[in-house]
Amino acid sequence: MSRELFVLTYGALVAQLCKDYEKDEDVNKYLDRMGYGIGIRLIEDFLARSAVRKCHSYSEIADMIAQVAFKMYLGITPSVTCINKRRNKFSLILNKNPLVDFVEELPAGRSSLCYCNLLCGVIRGALEMINLAAEVTFVQDRLKGDDVTEIGITFLRKLEDKKCKKK
Amino acid sequence: MSRELFVLTYGALVAQLCKDYEKDEDVNKYLDRMGYGIGIRLIEDFLARSAVRKCHSYSEIADMIAQVAFKMYLGITPSVTCINKRRNKFSLILNKNPLVDFVEELPAGRSSLCYCNLLCGVIRGALEMINLAAEVTFVQDRLKGDDVTEIGITFLRKLEDKKCKKK
Repeated sequence: MSRELFVLTYGALVAQLCKDYEKDEDVNKYLDRMGYGIGIRLIEDFLARSAVRKCHSYSEIADMIAQVAFKMYLGITPSVTCINKRRNKFSLILNKNPLVDFVEELPAGRSSLCYCNLLCGVIRGALEMINLAAEVTFVQDRLKGDDVTEIGITFLRKLEDKKCKKK
Repeated sequence: MSRELFVLTYGALVAQLCKDYEKDEDVNKYLDRMGYGIGIRLIEDFLARSAVRKCHSYSEIADMIAQVAFKMYLGITPSVTCINKRRNKFSLILNKNPLVDFVEELPAGRSSLCYCNLLCGVIRGALEMINLAAEVTFVQDRLKGDDVTEIGITFLRKLEDKKCKKK
């Protein structure tokens, strides 16, 4: 399946939400919630197709998200950095973001819109299904004039029930 | 890019519209209009990537939609039949429909929903950009209990300005 149709459909979805909700934060929330619903279904597909084995640390999980999941679903591989000593906060830097292929800038008057917030919800939902609570947000966004696009993932609980598997 | 993310995102879009609009026909109209907006942008990508040459008949155009465009964007090739003597009405039979991969049935109380109506709008919009007016609708739909899924295309004007190109 070609990405152009997806990217344009996603754009139409965001445009629809911008019509429905006046406040950017409501659109962001909606995209995140929608993504969450997708994530909790997508994880099954991911585990089935990726045949990954157990992860033993948040760091391994973050690598898996970037190197296996992003690659599989978006065709890109963000770079991952752990950004705190407790080693539960990670930064994913997206050099390319295929979801904004046809988007030059945010819609007028929508400067707080997290255009790709669906992705955060997808990650959050998928992690929750393997018993990992996480906060996932856009920290930087090229569409907002930042130098890079960065997704921040903060794992909130200890990894006890290790359903996540790694190669 | 993997189709699962697209298919689930499309499902989320339809669910959102079902919340927003009470009547199935309003959702159908909305999906068609949204698809139209996508089609008028997608045609450029299609012409650039497919390097097709001029078409000399509606029949050639219908074949191109099924064999080149559907293949390129959805990974399927519907079969095409011309269904009238004037040779301007065509039936595209989709044996597989990747857009409904995760959909078992229409949502409750939504028996008139044309779940994939976005596709009709995409075709209509793309054709309009090459100066072809057409009516595009779902004639049959497996999700509605029909034996097959069928998209009907009726070309409404003579092919005068032949911007459409064929291999």
